[in-house]
Amino acid sequence: MILFFGTCFLLFVICYLLFVICYLLFGTCNFYRIQRGLLPTMDRIYITDLSQHEDQIVTLKGWLYNKRSSGKLRFLILRDGTATVQCVVFKGDVDEATFAAADALTQESSFEVTGKVVPDERAPSGYEMQVKSIKTVQIAMDYPITPKEHGTAFLMDNRHLWLRSSRQTAILKVRHTIIKACRDFFDDRGFTLVDTPIFTPAACEGTTTLFETDYFGEKAYLSQSGQLYSEAAIGALGKTYCFGPTFRAEKSKTRRHLTEFWMVEPEVAFADLDDNMKLAEEFVSFVVQRALENNQEELKRLERDTKPLENVVPPFPKITYDEAAKILLEQGVDFEYGSDFGGGDETVLADQFDRPVMIHRWPVEIKAFYMKHAPENDNLAMGVDVLAPEGYGEIIGGGQREEDYETLVSRIKAHGLPMEAFDWYLDLRKYGAVPHSGFGMGIERCVAWICKLPHVRETIPFPRMMARLKP
Amino acid sequence: MILFFGTCFLLFVICYLLFVICYLLFGTCNFYRIQRGLLPTMDRIYITDLSQHEDQIVTLKGWLYNKRSSGKLRFLILRDGTATVQCVVFKGDVDEATFAAADALTQESSFEVTGKVVPDERAPSGYEMQVKSIKTVQIAMDYPITPKEHGTAFLMDNRHLWLRSSRQTAILKVRHTIIKACRDFFDDRGFTLVDTPIFTPAACEGTTTLFETDYFGEKAYLSQSGQLYSEAAIGALGKTYCFGPTFRAEKSKTRRHLTEFWMVEPEVAFADLDDNMKLAEEFVSFVVQRALENNQEELKRLERDTKPLENVVPPFPKITYDEAAKILLEQGVDFEYGSDFGGGDETVLADQFDRPVMIHRWPVEIKAFYMKHAPENDNLAMGVDVLAPEGYGEIIGGGQREEDYETLVSRIKAHGLPMEAFDWYLDLRKYGAVPHSGFGMGIERCVAWICKLPHVRETIPFPRMMARLKP
Repeated sequence: MILFFGTCFLLFVICYLLFVICYLLFGTCNFYRIQRGLLPTMDRIYITDLSQHEDQIVTLKGWLYNKRSSGKLRFLILRDGTATVQCVVFKGDVDEATFAAADALTQESSFEVTGKVVPDERAPSGYEMQVKSIKTVQIAMDYPITPKEHGTAFLMDNRHLWLRSSRQTAILKVRHTIIKACRDFFDDRGFTLVDTPIFTPAACEGTTTLFETDYFGEKAYLSQSGQLYSEAAIGALGKTYCFGPTFRAEKSKTRRHLTEFWMVEPEVAFADLDDNMKLAEEFVSFVVQRALENNQEELKRLERDTKPLENVVPPFPKITYDEAAKILLEQGVDFEYGSDFGGGDETVLADQFDRPVMIHRWPVEIKAFYMKHAPENDNLAMGVDVLAPEGYGEIIGGGQREEDYETLVSRIKAHGLPMEAFDWYLDLRKYGAVPHSGFGMGIERCVAWICKLPHVRETIPFPRMMARLKP
Repeated sequence: MILFFGTCFLLFVICYLLFVICYLLFGTCNFYRIQRGLLPTMDRIYITDLSQHEDQIVTLKGWLYNKRSSGKLRFLILRDGTATVQCVVFKGDVDEATFAAADALTQESSFEVTGKVVPDERAPSGYEMQVKSIKTVQIAMDYPITPKEHGTAFLMDNRHLWLRSSRQTAILKVRHTIIKACRDFFDDRGFTLVDTPIFTPAACEGTTTLFETDYFGEKAYLSQSGQLYSEAAIGALGKTYCFGPTFRAEKSKTRRHLTEFWMVEPEVAFADLDDNMKLAEEFVSFVVQRALENNQEELKRLERDTKPLENVVPPFPKITYDEAAKILLEQGVDFEYGSDFGGGDETVLADQFDRPVMIHRWPVEIKAFYMKHAPENDNLAMGVDVLAPEGYGEIIGGGQREEDYETLVSRIKAHGLPMEAFDWYLDLRKYGAVPHSGFGMGIERCVAWICKLPHVRETIPFPRMMARLKP
């Protein structure tokens, strides 16, 4: 009996000692080494992943967004591109070098920080870090963008740094969501991406708004739209979209114009204007709803009231150009029937509705030569524009294309366009012509609307405008 | 009792009559109307969706790919962009007009065809259609591309039609998969898409291979890479990628060169060369495996042996430039140490391995000024190239960037580059510099490799080469 208890006691003691040894070896050693600088970096994580590491020691890497001091405490706001988090340095917790490092960090200095992840209800991420050690990477001196107000020209000159502000990163994240939503929408519906060329040989509709380049002795022009090429691609693939930068050398300095902007353009074989409008309204609402799902935090940071966006579900109101013109006259707008709508007209029209409005059947004079005319009225083109609410104007333009060879030839002649530039385009009407439609959506105008920005210059990482080619 | 049975009988008769009426009204009426042409189109479906409509009457819309005749039978091969299917017209099943319409259809004529979906084990899709009616849309006369062999110049001149061939649609579908895989890879790993500008102000590294355009009186150059801008973007977002067309005015006419090509370029803050190589090998294998998952049919049509692609999984072999040079010398290649590898050298190197090989640590003289030098040897640049197997050469180029301000300034001077063009780029080293890396993958070379194509001209819908700007 004594032997039994003795053995038990011995086993218990051995187990206890083993436990203590293990605890000393594995339970605290990393912590110990980090404090002593023996383990300079732990596995690095991003701020968005903090919740998976509660009570663990981790390393974050990023830039100092802001700093506060209070007695023996230093509060470092770190940003790493995914989010921001407060890192608390308590003098009693760290060695002198670490506390001095915290004191030396300036706005936008880069550093690595190791510490314990602890829950904090007041924090936006729900967590803060109790700092154990800091490794300074580079000290930024006199960062030019300070919390004070800066002029637009100054911020645009420093666009490479301005991008780091919380407002600009929020916009870029919404832009990312919008672009991904556009692609997912078409990919999920069986469309094939067909990248159309940027270099195009002939200036189809006059050269005044085209950028030109020397192409090994020939002249090439930068594309304003992939549409004509997409019309060829649907003959191979049925439903396609292109999505790339487009260029317009317009001498306008409005808040809606960029010289370089991205456009997504679907094109569908065997689709008429009604099919096209249905696709467009489903598309726009898909994109808006995706932004609402993924970017609540960013939209909040931009102080975007999301109520009007929640309305953006099909069906959209659909009115003809004639009905739109009537609305303008009723609203007392000085508008001449037959002309295109200006920015102000578009706002008046959009204000009549609680979601985007589609305007179809336009006077043929103000629409492109390739548009199909309405079967019921040869003076009307089967085009459609989609106007965004809240004064953001046209975000989509499209329509049904003329598929008849003879009709298209006579249109090209009537518009005084060079027939030889369209030989391949006319081929599409000779070899298996089909009714077809498509549209284009400008990404930057869409971003401006969804984020409710006053100017498109903030919608693209490095905007290009008439007087802006740098950085 | 008689009354009871009488009522029952009457009820039975009424029910039977109701059933007959219903059957006549709904059971056969569509079928009846279709045969009589009263219902010109049913709900249209795509060929890929046939399996969901077995034994149903549906309408397909597309183009005649091929046709065979045999007595009272006409076999129409219809393609609609999603697939092809055989539509069988039996003279006894259709009215005279329909049979005549089938006879009149020529290659690439567009038509709508309504009929019953029936299983057919011999068919690639597993189904064929028993035709009930045909609606001709347009008759194509003398389609220029016939099953006979055509010269490359002829096919390139007719690229807008050549795209319709089964080989070209297969390539475009693989291209679609590859591009989507690239984006998904980075999106799923928390990268933010940051579209870098096409118009850039200064010719950083000489103008010989840059396309130039007049930008409202200034000179602008078309981007060859978004890298420098991505280096700014990671300061805001940590991990970014850009994905757009890039331009190179190279006077070379090889099978690997286009003047306009698409490139995906990730950039990561706090990442060194090893991190970069790890990302690159995971990325390449992800893209290849996705193509194998999604495009078995297309790869088969291209007669691509998929065995070598199945090998493309991490880890890739990683050798230094010095080791690569040694291999070349061992293989008896006439190669001078210190020079860049030519296409033939790349093939010899790639042939030593069963998957892509990564070559790192290059002589600084043949790499760009912004590359970080190896800590162990200042004569080596921390760059990495990834060579595809099977003679496809470099598909990825990248490396770790120099983050030290003074070092970069002295490099710019040493390379005789204009300092003022890099003021904003140098800012990134003043304000929170961090170790960072990235790479670029050319989409067209990747498509050429995965599809095993002899020339990049087939990898992009509308290729642009030195002597090719049209269509």
